Amino acid sequence: MNFIKEEIAEFKIPFELKNGTSLSNFSLIYETYGKLNNTHSNAILVCHALNASHHVAGMNDNNEIGWWDNMIGPGKPIDTNKFFVIGVNNLGSCFGSTGPASIDENTKRPYGSSFPVLTVEDWVKSQALLADRLEIEEFAAVIGGSLGGMQAIQWSISYPNRIKHAIIIASTASLTAQNIAFNEIARRAIITDPDFHGGDYYSMETYPKVGLSIARMLAHITYLSQDGMTERFGRNLQSKETYSFSYEIDFQIESYLRYQGEKFSHTFDANSYLLITRVLDYFDPTEKFNGDLTKALDCVKAKCLVLSFTSDWRFPPSHSHKLVSALIENEVDVSYIEIKSENGHDSFLLKDMEYHQIIRSYFNKIVI
Amino acid sequence: MNFIKEEIAEFKIPFELKNGTSLSNFSLIYETYGKLNNTHSNAILVCHALNASHHVAGMNDNNEIGWWDNMIGPGKPIDTNKFFVIGVNNLGSCFGSTGPASIDENTKRPYGSSFPVLTVEDWVKSQALLADRLEIEEFAAVIGGSLGGMQAIQWSISYPNRIKHAIIIASTASLTAQNIAFNEIARRAIITDPDFHGGDYYSMETYPKVGLSIARMLAHITYLSQDGMTERFGRNLQSKETYSFSYEIDFQIESYLRYQGEKFSHTFDANSYLLITRVLDYFDPTEKFNGDLTKALDCVKAKCLVLSFTSDWRFPPSHSHKLVSALIENEVDVSYIEIKSENGHDSFLLKDMEYHQIIRSYFNKIVI
Repeated sequence: MNFIKEEIAEFKIPFELKNGTSLSNFSLIYETYGKLNNTHSNAILVCHALNASHHVAGMNDNNEIGWWDNMIGPGKPIDTNKFFVIGVNNLGSCFGSTGPASIDENTKRPYGSSFPVLTVEDWVKSQALLADRLEIEEFAAVIGGSLGGMQAIQWSISYPNRIKHAIIIASTASLTAQNIAFNEIARRAIITDPDFHGGDYYSMETYPKVGLSIARMLAHITYLSQDGMTERFGRNLQSKETYSFSYEIDFQIESYLRYQGEKFSHTFDANSYLLITRVLDYFDPTEKFNGDLTKALDCVKAKCLVLSFTSDWRFPPSHSHKLVSALIENEVDVSYIEIKSENGHDSFLLKDMEYHQIIRSYFNKIVI
Repeated sequence: MNFIKEEIAEFKIPFELKNGTSLSNFSLIYETYGKLNNTHSNAILVCHALNASHHVAGMNDNNEIGWWDNMIGPGKPIDTNKFFVIGVNNLGSCFGSTGPASIDENTKRPYGSSFPVLTVEDWVKSQALLADRLEIEEFAAVIGGSLGGMQAIQWSISYPNRIKHAIIIASTASLTAQNIAFNEIARRAIITDPDFHGGDYYSMETYPKVGLSIARMLAHITYLSQDGMTERFGRNLQSKETYSFSYEIDFQIESYLRYQGEKFSHTFDANSYLLITRVLDYFDPTEKFNGDLTKALDCVKAKCLVLSFTSDWRFPPSHSHKLVSALIENEVDVSYIEIKSENGHDSFLLKDMEYHQIIRSYFNKIVI
């Protein structure tokens, strides 16, 4: 196991945002794995999804293993003997980069409700500043699953000359009404929690734990497949012979979800959760192109690998099909593979032979 | 339009429940449409789903049209010129039959948290008492969609000699882990609402409006299909040119769901919602048969019509397939039709040519 130290990049310049406001300064926390080569041609940016962080691989000071450690490391599908891999915590998140819980230097108090609603474009722009700082002119690849995949798409649009390969996994070019609906309910659960205090709970010695827990339980359903849940939990009872005839826990799935919600509510910031669900909702490269994805992707130069998973009902293969069609219409060099999996949206995080072999082969062929 | 008066049946006898307790007395509120014939052979029982009531057809005193008025009435698919149709509000609901908001005669206060958790078996048993009262020895048919279909299944198990036809629409023989998960989150939203007061909110001049609203928003997602939602709402913005960069309503789907949640929270009782979601979770005829549905349905004598809708992801066609297979293994006379529809689970409530023609033909052939 590699031991990893996180690093911080501070930007003491106004950072203009898509919403028209700006941050007067910000920090990004990041980790790196492997070594940047002499020509700086072997850098890979890993973009994280809703609840993950910059701690992508190896073991950190808290003895935590990175969320994609099965994918990234020496000899792994993304081989850090060849590549210099960067994991960065996104702006607005809650693992060290500037976010709603950070102190606003202008007021000397946590941003809370005054933290701006960001977009994938803003994130990618901030990541490009980090790349500048690390003297990386062009990434060999930008890779991400789910919301991470959206960042890879945006990189290929915002900086077509700074990304050679975009690897877009279990992702989408925009959320559907159903996707937005799930996010909206999660936000309602948080915002209506009496402990939310309009987002300014940091000074209240409380936080919207219950709302955040419900939000997480709900999201969790969309991460697993219907069949996967049936196989894992079915109608199994939790340490009981029969029903309790109450609203306490009877079924294992109830216990599992409550545990997941509870655990998450201790580690994630509710304002960051609101913000990142909105980042998801707002992502739509076709916004300025009357809904025309082909036109929106006209500028893409990166070679693309698009992967989807058969049982993913959050961003099902049909989302990837749309993306791939639009890339093909632009004569982008794109490969698409639909991977058979019962693990739903979460598949992108799991160790699956076929999936990992595809990533390994693709990264082996990347010329640095 | 037929004008309908509701009626009440009071039962002043202890009613034993599956959970081992009993109600010392109870009332059922019901409506009837058409006339009972001389031989009492033309009675149809309509069982309702989670949030519906005994007001199935026609116009009531509040100028409300019944929830299945497109299906039931003179000349309609279930023709009240031929049949005597009964709609009954289930025990534990909140539209007039005894439920958590009713006064417990023993304490002279609302039941609240002391109201027992019921089961589909209890409901069917209470409906049989109503049938006795109306001098109906055998129903020509028991019909229902969703949770109503479960009652039709249970009728064919509990009273095989009192039901000639069971019509089971968009239903299931038991909930999956995913189905239970959605119910559990809805319950958490209600129970953790500070206005819930452990279920005894009736005396508090408040009720868990916010939790109930979130529960309903969540349920609503499962009633519509992914494609139907996309077609109806897509990513359309609500009276806006661009994003608000806030957590207020931006998308039409957000506005729609908030409206649905808000409206529902004014008309439904939170304790009834908890109870009925638990009725759903607990339904499982295989409970005493080690999960063997064929054995559980061994006693069924009713002829069955099972219908499912292609885009229903709450109780998808695969649920009906399991039920039909088990009925066939028992040599039950069963017809199954999978209806193409984009309207998801809600399809069973909507006027669809093919669907209504199937019901019409089936009921035309029922000999009375």
